Amino acid sequence: MTSIGVGLIGTGYMGKCHALAWNGVGPVFGTGRRPRLVHLAEASADLAARRAAEFGFERATGDWREVVDDPEVEVVSITTPNALHAEMALAALAAGKHVWCEKPMATTLVDAERMVAAARAAGRVAVLGYNYIQNPLIRHIGRLLAEGAIGAVSHVRFEMDEDFMADPEAPFGWKSEAASGYGALDDFGVHPLSLMHVLFGGVVRVMAQLAKPYPDRPLPEGGRRAVETFDIASVLMELRNGATGIMALNRAARGRKNRLAMQVFGSRGAIAYDQERMNEFQFFTASGDAADQGFRTVLSAPAHPPYDRFVPAPGHGLGFNDLKLIECHELLEAIAGRPAHIIDFAAGLGIERAVHAMARSHSEASWSYV
Amino acid sequence: MTSIGVGLIGTGYMGKCHALAWNGVGPVFGTGRRPRLVHLAEASADLAARRAAEFGFERATGDWREVVDDPEVEVVSITTPNALHAEMALAALAAGKHVWCEKPMATTLVDAERMVAAARAAGRVAVLGYNYIQNPLIRHIGRLLAEGAIGAVSHVRFEMDEDFMADPEAPFGWKSEAASGYGALDDFGVHPLSLMHVLFGGVVRVMAQLAKPYPDRPLPEGGRRAVETFDIASVLMELRNGATGIMALNRAARGRKNRLAMQVFGSRGAIAYDQERMNEFQFFTASGDAADQGFRTVLSAPAHPPYDRFVPAPGHGLGFNDLKLIECHELLEAIAGRPAHIIDFAAGLGIERAVHAMARSHSEASWSYV
Amino acid sequence: MTSIGVGLIGTGYMGKCHALAWNGVGPVFGTGRRPRLVHLAEASADLAARRAAEFGFERATGDWREVVDDPEVEVVSITTPNALHAEMALAALAAGKHVWCEKPMATTLVDAERMVAAARAAGRVAVLGYNYIQNPLIRHIGRLLAEGAIGAVSHVRFEMDEDFMADPEAPFGWKSEAASGYGALDDFGVHPLSLMHVLFGGVVRVMAQLAKPYPDRPLPEGGRRAVETFDIASVLMELRNGATGIMALNRAARGRKNRLAMQVFGSRGAIAYDQERMNEFQFFTASGDAADQGFRTVLSAPAHPPYDRFVPAPGHGLGFNDLKLIECHELLEAIAGRPAHIIDFAAGLGIERAVHAMARSHSEASWSYV
Amino acid sequence: MTSIGVGLIGTGYMGKCHALAWNGVGPVFGTGRRPRLVHLAEASADLAARRAAEFGFERATGDWREVVDDPEVEVVSITTPNALHAEMALAALAAGKHVWCEKPMATTLVDAERMVAAARAAGRVAVLGYNYIQNPLIRHIGRLLAEGAIGAVSHVRFEMDEDFMADPEAPFGWKSEAASGYGALDDFGVHPLSLMHVLFGGVVRVMAQLAKPYPDRPLPEGGRRAVETFDIASVLMELRNGATGIMALNRAARGRKNRLAMQVFGSRGAIAYDQERMNEFQFFTASGDAADQGFRTVLSAPAHPPYDRFVPAPGHGLGFNDLKLIECHELLEAIAGRPAHIIDFAAGLGIERAVHAMARSHSEASWSYV
Repeated sequence: MTSIGVGLIGTGYMGKCHALAWNGVGPVFGTGRRPRLVHLAEASADLAARRAAEFGFERATGDWREVVDDPEVEVVSITTPNALHAEMALAALAAGKHVWCEKPMATTLVDAERMVAAARAAGRVAVLGYNYIQNPLIRHIGRLLAEGAIGAVSHVRFEMDEDFMADPEAPFGWKSEAASGYGALDDFGVHPLSLMHVLFGGVVRVMAQLAKPYPDRPLPEGGRRAVETFDIASVLMELRNGATGIMALNRAARGRKNRLAMQVFGSRGAIAYDQERMNEFQFFTASGDAADQGFRTVLSAPAHPPYDRFVPAPGHGLGFNDLKLIECHELLEAIAGRPAHIIDFAAGLGIERAVHAMARSHSEASWSYV
Repeated sequence: MTSIGVGLIGTGYMGKCHALAWNGVGPVFGTGRRPRLVHLAEASADLAARRAAEFGFERATGDWREVVDDPEVEVVSITTPNALHAEMALAALAAGKHVWCEKPMATTLVDAERMVAAARAAGRVAVLGYNYIQNPLIRHIGRLLAEGAIGAVSHVRFEMDEDFMADPEAPFGWKSEAASGYGALDDFGVHPLSLMHVLFGGVVRVMAQLAKPYPDRPLPEGGRRAVETFDIASVLMELRNGATGIMALNRAARGRKNRLAMQVFGSRGAIAYDQERMNEFQFFTASGDAADQGFRTVLSAPAHPPYDRFVPAPGHGLGFNDLKLIECHELLEAIAGRPAHIIDFAAGLGIERAVHAMARSHSEASWSYV
Repeated sequence: MTSIGVGLIGTGYMGKCHALAWNGVGPVFGTGRRPRLVHLAEASADLAARRAAEFGFERATGDWREVVDDPEVEVVSITTPNALHAEMALAALAAGKHVWCEKPMATTLVDAERMVAAARAAGRVAVLGYNYIQNPLIRHIGRLLAEGAIGAVSHVRFEMDEDFMADPEAPFGWKSEAASGYGALDDFGVHPLSLMHVLFGGVVRVMAQLAKPYPDRPLPEGGRRAVETFDIASVLMELRNGATGIMALNRAARGRKNRLAMQVFGSRGAIAYDQERMNEFQFFTASGDAADQGFRTVLSAPAHPPYDRFVPAPGHGLGFNDLKLIECHELLEAIAGRPAHIIDFAAGLGIERAVHAMARSHSEASWSYV
Repeated sequence: MTSIGVGLIGTGYMGKCHALAWNGVGPVFGTGRRPRLVHLAEASADLAARRAAEFGFERATGDWREVVDDPEVEVVSITTPNALHAEMALAALAAGKHVWCEKPMATTLVDAERMVAAARAAGRVAVLGYNYIQNPLIRHIGRLLAEGAIGAVSHVRFEMDEDFMADPEAPFGWKSEAASGYGALDDFGVHPLSLMHVLFGGVVRVMAQLAKPYPDRPLPEGGRRAVETFDIASVLMELRNGATGIMALNRAARGRKNRLAMQVFGSRGAIAYDQERMNEFQFFTASGDAADQGFRTVLSAPAHPPYDRFVPAPGHGLGFNDLKLIECHELLEAIAGRPAHIIDFAAGLGIERAVHAMARSHSEASWSYV
């Protein structure tokens, strides 16, 4: 078993998530090159050293370029704030590293396009952190759709709701600044779009309505400041497979914590899913006696690989971090030159374009093509 | 206890539903004028006689005008196919009767407007059969919203799904003909619109995308005929209260039987409801310890009047027919000159206008004002 | 269509429920002899007169014997407090009337046995008000079990929970007096037992543990009085079909409103049901791909007769009162000499005996045969 | 950051689970002594070497005694078949190691008692693998109960159901042999008992009914062999806190995958939990307006420590393996001399005694004291 040198930039929410994946991917999947945790970067050298000890990295630095330039590092995890993704990814690719970059790709479409070009030029694997596509149930749903289990799909509904912007009296922060992007659209609308990409080939044209639940928010220093981003988005869509549908996003949705929900209607059946209950999905098929038909709740199980690599018993459940670990494994598969279930930079660019088309359709009050 | 003479035109799905309401409203509510079931009309005199015996009507006829002209009839239930509503309602109003007409009002906006004018001119009560607004839980939700229990509402989602058009090989029928209307929009989109009317004052502007899941259907005589109506509709909306939202309609939704579902997000909480579980709703309020917050499932109970008129114990449940019976009681309240929770012709016209605005927005691919 | 004269004794919770059934059974089922509401009795003549007007009865009386003796009355609804059932039922049967008596039969086993003997001697129909067996879904579950849809049943679980005795500071009332019976066992344990009767042929031997959540309760006049009945019962059971199981009863179960829940495990599948969601049941069958198996939620529908007599569309839902109406129809079927899905006095005696066996097993701390 | 030497015996279902925990506990919790994976034993040296590479252990052996005797090993994970637990744990304790042993402790009560004595004599930490008590929600429920959030608890219900013995035609295996134990009771009845231990202090007396859904099973060589163990158990219980309750176990429960379910009723509220949806629990509190009360679904969140060590966002969900990782952390806390949420050998002996008392009560058909 050979090793592969890993660098990690950033150790916040997603940084820790990557670190857990790098630690666990070997024991869980038990094959391939074993990650060697070489170099970790944080904003300060002190914090970097502390995190390196916790996460099991050999070296630590306060300068991310040292990670990118480390000859023992072969693949770099980039988990820093969105505005830094492009610069770091470009540097890592230029240094010949594979890149595992958190979503969204970049804050501008131009940057995203440069990232795609750089990955192509470098001939390196460049994967985005769209972890929800890694849920074994989502992959199983993909197989069901491909096999025609619910017939031709004509109508879909996607919802993504959390409540971290729900309190109208929470102080004005960077998420309310225009510099952070459009709001719900890019902040987490990319998640349902990632599902649409793997399940339906993405969206073709869109018509969005963006909204601000609260016109302003209090400033810490007193007074209030007008909110510049849109916490709510409602979208009409046409998918590549010809189906139509809606997408509703709300990061001010009281009571919702991680409701990435999906309903898919086909000519022979239907499927529903909700990330808040990530270990089950609903499956309806119009077969058998009508008196006994109904949506069935299917629990995640070894029959939905790679769930079996985590637990050999059904219904025991995976967690959020396990999805990132599966993503890590897919990344290693890609690096090994095997087919992998990933969203790479090129595919991610399609998602970014969809987001921008939605924002454009809102401004112009008309349909936009992606 | 005085009586009130009742006429019934039509004895199908909704006709029987009206008949059950007229039979039960006295025993359930126990007050007011007792319905006297006077005259029933059906397409044939034979069927009329049979149904009159079953439903307890004194007289039967094959000519609906005899019901309208019967001097002992004071209020007329109109439950015939949509295309007949206008003529019958106008005749009944002209004869000085109160009218209880099933939804939708009419097949053209012009007819609907004439019906409103006629009701106003006659000074009679003219009520539409929007029974879902009568669910005691919907009325309770209305009170919660009015009291600010979830704060200012900023975002709503409505869904209406059934599967009676889901089979792609079901023969071409009148619901696929353009003469029947737009499709899902008027066929049952009016139900969520009725909820929006009582809860939020209705919609201001809309942007719809209509879709056909199946381009054609088999003809009984062989061959196939192109479908002219839209079984699917996706709509962006702006409500009178300033909130934005989406509405998704699908009468070809495999597995859904009567999913009139609603999600309402406010600054302090959220509410969700699904007609398939009509005896419960979901209520989230952002109060107390965050560790113990969650959507609570509230079961229908005597605390939600007029549930208490049906059963004195909580959680025992009302049925679909009970909603029509409550509607019947509200109609009698209106006739008695008391405040009533109804959608009258004037309000119903607003719903019809919203439907037509949606169809227009689809054709023009742009926002339409109602 | 001939008529059948109806008498009603009692107009409380169940009295009104019977009255609604008598009013609606003709319109809903549309066949057979039409009920003629002849005579109603209440404790006072005044109240009787008022209720007769509300419920549509021709005559009213403060003396229940006048109803029993009325020659125009052919069937008598008995909905008075439990202690009066025996005397009234015996008198009605002696007068040659059919009897529809609310559960439980009587407060002593001796009385129940006399009622069975009297019904047999009179050759009249004597039906008990076990309405939950009338749910079209329960009847459908019965068909599934009979057809072997889940194979041989080996294990069952029944729960019955409400919260009307949950408040420890609610004043001492008659339900806490020994004279009212054992407590949860006879107060509502008879409901799950009625389901076990129709689905599994009843119970053979039992082992119960009775419990008091609160030792005493406040008296209105001050001070506290020791509670004499058992609000909680836990029971081990062996059923006539050989299966074992448990039954848990709690009328002090905070949050439960009408949770009559059932789980049935068989060699090929499983079924679950909860009366709080009376329009659905859960059905698991071990067929097809393991990756797609799960409990399916089947909504009540016309495919579950006699749901179709109420609504022609699936998923629209019946209510609690509709079950009593179906029971009324079955009673009329029995009177007409046709097979009927009822629990008559003889079957009801079996349920009473099971209750007494449970109480005995608690006292003796050992298994009791029914 | 100092290290602690870890030995692992066994690499099956639970062995891998321990390995994942040892790999992840440092990165997740980030504090304390970092596990150093020293020595791994499997039945064969070959398999041991392969697993050591996968799991990241330094040394491998086909002889478990080498792990126990390894001076660099300070704590030993024992994940072998139940019959081997006692010998290995005793050897490890005798060698001065801390022990982390999978449940159940042993196959005889005598062995379990020897293990308790050995742990006490050695002065070493000896923890059992009751991972479900580690769910942050179970720990939160424990806090709620302790704070009186639902008042005095009077009635509980526990269910544990899986379907790995559900197929009547699955071949006769060791789980059907008497040598394996009683069946459902010790195979997984210990899981609900572990919850009862941490939440209610355990059970005082019990009355069980054991059952065999299938009398015999096919032998691979043809013919059938009588089943000797009980796949089903139904139990009445009295808890140490005075509450009564039931426990139902079924390892032949079609459709159930990991339904470790619990209902707890108190004087002011109720709590329900189901391991199949391990990231939520149901909480009812009888406060506020009755019209708005209901069971609320609380999603796991950072407010339920140590969930926050895994993900900083609510509703994202932990998985089955995360519970073992938390257990590992608690073990390290105990080794460090800090208070820990564990079931040690002494507590585990209480669980074993409860199991044996249940079996005894079945044989004697009478209540047994634990």
